[in-house]
Amino acid sequence: MGITLEQAEAVVAAGRAEADSIGVPMNIAVVDAGNNLTAFARQDGAWLGSIDIAQNKAYTARAFDAATGDLYDETQPGGSLYGLSASNDGKVITFPGGIPLKNGETIVGAVGVSGGTVDQDQQVAEAAVKGLS
Amino acid sequence: MGITLEQAEAVVAAGRAEADSIGVPMNIAVVDAGNNLTAFARQDGAWLGSIDIAQNKAYTARAFDAATGDLYDETQPGGSLYGLSASNDGKVITFPGGIPLKNGETIVGAVGVSGGTVDQDQQVAEAAVKGLS
Amino acid sequence: MGITLEQAEAVVAAGRAEADSIGVPMNIAVVDAGNNLTAFARQDGAWLGSIDIAQNKAYTARAFDAATGDLYDETQPGGSLYGLSASNDGKVITFPGGIPLKNGETIVGAVGVSGGTVDQDQQVAEAAVKGLS
Amino acid sequence: MGITLEQAEAVVAAGRAEADSIGVPMNIAVVDAGNNLTAFARQDGAWLGSIDIAQNKAYTARAFDAATGDLYDETQPGGSLYGLSASNDGKVITFPGGIPLKNGETIVGAVGVSGGTVDQDQQVAEAAVKGLS
Repeated sequence: MGITLEQAEAVVAAGRAEADSIGVPMNIAVVDAGNNLTAFARQDGAWLGSIDIAQNKAYTARAFDAATGDLYDETQPGGSLYGLSASNDGKVITFPGGIPLKNGETIVGAVGVSGGTVDQDQQVAEAAVKGLS
Repeated sequence: MGITLEQAEAVVAAGRAEADSIGVPMNIAVVDAGNNLTAFARQDGAWLGSIDIAQNKAYTARAFDAATGDLYDETQPGGSLYGLSASNDGKVITFPGGIPLKNGETIVGAVGVSGGTVDQDQQVAEAAVKGLS
Repeated sequence: MGITLEQAEAVVAAGRAEADSIGVPMNIAVVDAGNNLTAFARQDGAWLGSIDIAQNKAYTARAFDAATGDLYDETQPGGSLYGLSASNDGKVITFPGGIPLKNGETIVGAVGVSGGTVDQDQQVAEAAVKGLS
Repeated sequence: MGITLEQAEAVVAAGRAEADSIGVPMNIAVVDAGNNLTAFARQDGAWLGSIDIAQNKAYTARAFDAATGDLYDETQPGGSLYGLSASNDGKVITFPGGIPLKNGETIVGAVGVSGGTVDQDQQVAEAAVKGLS
């Protein structure tokens, strides 16, 4: 739905190449347009706690059709969406590393990356997005 | 831990080839020796409900170092392990499709397959195991 | 409450000795009279899925002041307590391996063992109980 | 996997000695490299609520290969990882008391301590780490 497994794996591969280039092993997950897991890879030595987070960043990016980092300000205390993180069975992650995948203007899925600093996660996610053909 | 991502992906690839040969799209998951998800792929058109089951078959096979189908009889009503399925947060799957991955006698992880009949799942899981190098 | 950590560890040690004697690595848990975890040990190579089960056998034995195996018949389909397993957040285990710990007639805690067949689990649990001084 | 039960118990014992020396009963948990519980002890009178916290501090320290206290600043409101605590089924603890266990540069597990102030928990955890042989 939206993307094929082949496309999802191209996204993961592009993310892995970027992770390798910065020397930080990552967990990378791709969901399809229906927000269901399509592909996942944990690079050797990547944080175990990020298995969950990578998947949930992808989930969040498709759940709200937004980069997870774009939810950050509004989910802080005092923000208009404070409390959003507790919705959806606690699967909403609001720091960077999750980005929707688009075919033109149509959202066809999302990628989530976790394993480093949020800047590193975001960098790898941005590279992963470019793997979508 | 036990297996590398490269090895896990070889297992997934061997399973996918078998699934393709029988024309049934599958969800295939691999966990490492610590029972943490390492690789996952959902083939185009594979059942969405099997995303969970494939992962939990892999989890179960490593949790008890046994093929999931080997737990079937004993977890039936009247069986010695009736009720096992409710343990481990409900992640125990007791029908075929999950198999431990071994390096000689050492268990290094497990694979779980879901998407067809249990016979088809088991057939694909057995093929996947052979992908371990 | 009921037992000290020193006593709980004596129970675990007695169980471990029995497990060693039969050559089956076990997970062994002890709860106190308040049904709170007091001591736990996973022997090298013991099933990962039994970490949960050993603790929940101990929990169940204290929850109902009964050996877990004594709940087996009544929790089968058609039994008077069918469905009990789903209570208490799914922590009720109804096959053998959990036994209350008593000081005279007073229940002071429970031990739970998991890692082998239910007969092996029960044998180790019975040996563990004898470790209570 | 990573550590033996014997090593895990040496870690717990070192922590208990430190807890005794400061007169604060503690819950002490050790996980292995796969982030699975290996040993646990609750000292007489230690807080019941800390049974969970000690285990989750150990879990967190291995999940992110970091001392739990090192996650504190970045998970505050406005921090780069605000919301991390809700991930991993709410098992992420971000105040001190959890520390990875290392064999040279390799992380082989983690210890978690809970029962006193965070300073006391951290002190006992640091002593526990030194018990690893």
